[in-house]
Amino acid sequence: MTTTTDLDLAELGQQLRVDSVRATAAAGSGHATSSMSAADLMAVLLGRYLRYDFDWPDHPGNDHLIFSKGHASPLLYSVYKAAGAVSDEELLTFRKLGSRLEGHPTPKLPWVDVATGSLGQGLPVGVGVALAGRRLEPMPYRVWVLCGDSELAEGSIWEAFEHAGYERLSNLTAIVDVNRLGQRGPTRHEWDLNAYARRAEAFGWHAIEVDGHDPAAIDAAYAEALSVSDRPSVVLARTIKGRGVASVENREGMHGKPLPEPAEAIEELGGERRIRVDVARPAAATAPRSRHGVHAELPVFSLGEKVATRDAYGRALAAVGTDRGDIVALDGEVSDSTRSEFFAKEHPDRFFECYIAEQELMATAVGMQVRGWLPFVSTFAAFLTRAHDFVRMAAVSHAQLNVVGSHSGVAIGEDGPSQMGLEDLALFRSVHGSTVLYPCDANQTTRLVAEMAAEASGVRYLRTSRGGGPVIYGPDEEFPIGGSKVLRSSDEDRLTLVAAGVTVHEALAAADELAAEGIPVRVIDLYSLKPVDVATLRAAAEVTGCLLSVEDHHPEGGLGDAVLDAFIDGHPVPRLVRLAVTTMPGSATGDEQLKEAGIDATAITAAAHRALAV
Amino acid sequence: MTTTTDLDLAELGQQLRVDSVRATAAAGSGHATSSMSAADLMAVLLGRYLRYDFDWPDHPGNDHLIFSKGHASPLLYSVYKAAGAVSDEELLTFRKLGSRLEGHPTPKLPWVDVATGSLGQGLPVGVGVALAGRRLEPMPYRVWVLCGDSELAEGSIWEAFEHAGYERLSNLTAIVDVNRLGQRGPTRHEWDLNAYARRAEAFGWHAIEVDGHDPAAIDAAYAEALSVSDRPSVVLARTIKGRGVASVENREGMHGKPLPEPAEAIEELGGERRIRVDVARPAAATAPRSRHGVHAELPVFSLGEKVATRDAYGRALAAVGTDRGDIVALDGEVSDSTRSEFFAKEHPDRFFECYIAEQELMATAVGMQVRGWLPFVSTFAAFLTRAHDFVRMAAVSHAQLNVVGSHSGVAIGEDGPSQMGLEDLALFRSVHGSTVLYPCDANQTTRLVAEMAAEASGVRYLRTSRGGGPVIYGPDEEFPIGGSKVLRSSDEDRLTLVAAGVTVHEALAAADELAAEGIPVRVIDLYSLKPVDVATLRAAAEVTGCLLSVEDHHPEGGLGDAVLDAFIDGHPVPRLVRLAVTTMPGSATGDEQLKEAGIDATAITAAAHRALAV
Repeated sequence: MTTTTDLDLAELGQQLRVDSVRATAAAGSGHATSSMSAADLMAVLLGRYLRYDFDWPDHPGNDHLIFSKGHASPLLYSVYKAAGAVSDEELLTFRKLGSRLEGHPTPKLPWVDVATGSLGQGLPVGVGVALAGRRLEPMPYRVWVLCGDSELAEGSIWEAFEHAGYERLSNLTAIVDVNRLGQRGPTRHEWDLNAYARRAEAFGWHAIEVDGHDPAAIDAAYAEALSVSDRPSVVLARTIKGRGVASVENREGMHGKPLPEPAEAIEELGGERRIRVDVARPAAATAPRSRHGVHAELPVFSLGEKVATRDAYGRALAAVGTDRGDIVALDGEVSDSTRSEFFAKEHPDRFFECYIAEQELMATAVGMQVRGWLPFVSTFAAFLTRAHDFVRMAAVSHAQLNVVGSHSGVAIGEDGPSQMGLEDLALFRSVHGSTVLYPCDANQTTRLVAEMAAEASGVRYLRTSRGGGPVIYGPDEEFPIGGSKVLRSSDEDRLTLVAAGVTVHEALAAADELAAEGIPVRVIDLYSLKPVDVATLRAAAEVTGCLLSVEDHHPEGGLGDAVLDAFIDGHPVPRLVRLAVTTMPGSATGDEQLKEAGIDATAITAAAHRALAV
Repeated sequence: MTTTTDLDLAELGQQLRVDSVRATAAAGSGHATSSMSAADLMAVLLGRYLRYDFDWPDHPGNDHLIFSKGHASPLLYSVYKAAGAVSDEELLTFRKLGSRLEGHPTPKLPWVDVATGSLGQGLPVGVGVALAGRRLEPMPYRVWVLCGDSELAEGSIWEAFEHAGYERLSNLTAIVDVNRLGQRGPTRHEWDLNAYARRAEAFGWHAIEVDGHDPAAIDAAYAEALSVSDRPSVVLARTIKGRGVASVENREGMHGKPLPEPAEAIEELGGERRIRVDVARPAAATAPRSRHGVHAELPVFSLGEKVATRDAYGRALAAVGTDRGDIVALDGEVSDSTRSEFFAKEHPDRFFECYIAEQELMATAVGMQVRGWLPFVSTFAAFLTRAHDFVRMAAVSHAQLNVVGSHSGVAIGEDGPSQMGLEDLALFRSVHGSTVLYPCDANQTTRLVAEMAAEASGVRYLRTSRGGGPVIYGPDEEFPIGGSKVLRSSDEDRLTLVAAGVTVHEALAAADELAAEGIPVRVIDLYSLKPVDVATLRAAAEVTGCLLSVEDHHPEGGLGDAVLDAFIDGHPVPRLVRLAVTTMPGSATGDEQLKEAGIDATAITAAAHRALAV
């Protein structure tokens, strides 16, 4: 093992290159040249700056190293090998079936915090990790993020620059591998480091320009970054893609490929080396801040009282936030609308205003859950589409993340279609391993929030409503995830209405109207859209033969499709009728909107008549 | 009518305020204070700078005025009234059922280019409009975009700054209404205009700071913007939210509400005025550049030849681009992967490299279709999630937009889940009025591209594959949108396999295996996922009683749900079996991935056996 002091950093850089070449050659694919450009940057970091106990990945004092340019995974794995964490044998399983060393890093490896590979995400998440280290749990760890130059075109990167600059996160260092070449060809700014420096400085960062192949200069740049105590630093390193192998250096058309002649390349790089770095350990962890809470009662609402589910959400979140000290809330500058302001008022130290930057909002939450915090992220359901890619990647990261979208559906009223969440159920249902909940009353909302707080489980989505519906459930009713509530039922039921959220109240009114006409219908409140209550839906299908779903959402991917999840294994399927928002709404009151969209009680009653007349 | 020269701009500003107050008061909702802050900015623009023929909204020389802060719609409608385009009577229909004057502007109004209201979108779209005026159809129109200060937190805004700065779009002026207050409270930078100026200048813009309530200063600022010929300009205006009514001026908690005492407010503002501005007309339009094409044959592929549908897409797009001069192609720095590079090589003047900034990529396309161009936008299917909100808003805008996502599904192989489009079908199916196409071979792809080019119709999505499958259709086969192809069929069919894209080939192999076992099954290539071929699916259901869908996508919102679109009106539903990607993939070859996900021929055959054994 080579200790830090007598380490030859240039040699280590060459080793990282050789191993990147070897791994990609063995795989027959992968990003060799993008790894070679950043090898010296990582050699200096590993040898001199990173403080990390690879035997104890959960050490609370460990630094965080995030490859925002996730395609440089061969370099990352070569770094792990140099640190003794990955064997040479495993290195050569790169990109093969069953290997932990995937084409882009994922947390299957214990030293990887989050999956990357969708560019422009690692730095935003890194901001969340750094922010936790400052505002939640003062800890001496540093966050190092390796970025590519191409990804600086992503707006999410500038949301991250803005957020970190504003929060003065001096525990964050971005290292940009400016190798001039993207996948397809040159970047906009090529080797104009100053173009990036001007932008970063304008956003409140300290920028350092450096030759990314000069270990001494890199060393000095990192030291300078460490010395800046009032803002984050970005090290802008001029590098050469494919550095070290003349035939591929700075050449277009070599992105994402192994080297054509790996044996010769390895020889040109000086052959294999066996440097093993004794990576500096983190300082003894300071006692982590207590995350214990104080027991708090959940809010309780009276039957018949009109309460918007967003109000219940805010009050319930404030209560569970008292109960559990590890809950954090983040909002996209609409906390007065989502009602996360109730949490903010009671727990200001655990509330994070992320302004109108939904990607960074989601990324900050992902970063905080890396540190073991349980985030509740809220904004308008419609604007969560802005963070879709971050939600998708959070699932790849196996992140524990609660997301809440308010102002769902046409029921919001006059503000019009730009503000209406009409695709959010489709978005969240299609996320791997997700849970999707959509309560219709305040007590139900409260209990679901408590469940989301009690036990984290992947990406969980709660959809709330702007307007106030009547409370229909008592405060002691339980609402297990994957359950449903049968609100009207008899053995004579001729049809089943399946509703959730605002349409539950419409379905109940329709059922009462139909009952008055002598037509008994069943009503199911399908508050858990994923997973769905298979048994209850199947029982209803057996008795009534027809399920009429009604939802304040586009017809694709929402409640109607969720109903089908109970019938996709070859089980007999009942007749189906689907009411959903198929028109483009304009401005109108909430009640008018439900009527115009054909999802109010009158429309349900009419559709039931039609269905029974078939 | 007041002519431009003797117009009292301060008085016009007050009129715009009064009308904003009146409209919101009549509606009982809406953003009065956010309109009042920008009234003077718009008074000077309307009175002195805008060149627009309100009687001829399609005049090719008209300027473009985009309210990126769409919630200031009362101000926009008051501007239209002052220009004589909207009557006072109509102004007072604001936010009412059936009114064109919605809570946020939409193109129901002929002077509105695109719907806004999701913040951070108007400027990115404005960049597309301005870019068209420079690179596609040299025209003297200018693009004016009114932004809020809150929305400058959106990364998409900085993607727009980067794009416009790099392209040196001096025909674009952003006007930022820095009123210090967002919805919930103060913005990050409040009245620090220089914070914004530094950022804008770093991105290559000319920044001008101004008192946003001093008409003469505003006039000078706009004149300065016009005088800058080598870059876009941003006018950063210090304003007061609620300006003119002391009780609401610069006060928190007044966002998105009518004034509490409208009659008193109007009196304080000096009462109603009847100024009618004679808006300057645009210069006589220069002859628009010819958009005629030269007839070109579509590429033709031989049966059995292995061709990736992305390759067919690129070649077909290049051909239709020759055929039609109004087609433009835009890509997110992966044209060598999506194969839009084939178009770029043949039509470099109509190809736009948008780098890795998918929001700005989509917005640029939306801006170009405002000017009558027909865009094809391409990137990896997975990364289209980044632009979800822009796609959603494009539908609200009734934009004509073709989108192509490559590298769909687990079939891409070793790159792993971050690069796999597994939610894209759900995303695009849930968009209002969308069309979703997913071809399985090269000739089919070619014909579908030709249809997308022949007639625009809302948001249309084409999903392509990375790997090459065999050509199974002849070049003269037709593939109408809304159709399907029955590839195996007999009256004895015991089951129907429904597939699309890569799984068509797996389904065919499974059908052949089952046929060899004496089990005839039907195979449907459901290349049109929205709309679906109802008749063919119902016929198959009638004959076989069971539909087994198999898709390289998550189980929610994709092919399996699309099949149901044929059965949601109460029609009897067959038994359903769904094969889809339910596991989290890692790295492996494409064939291994299909096997691991349980969507290859072997898995289909096994599922068919199970379904028939029920």
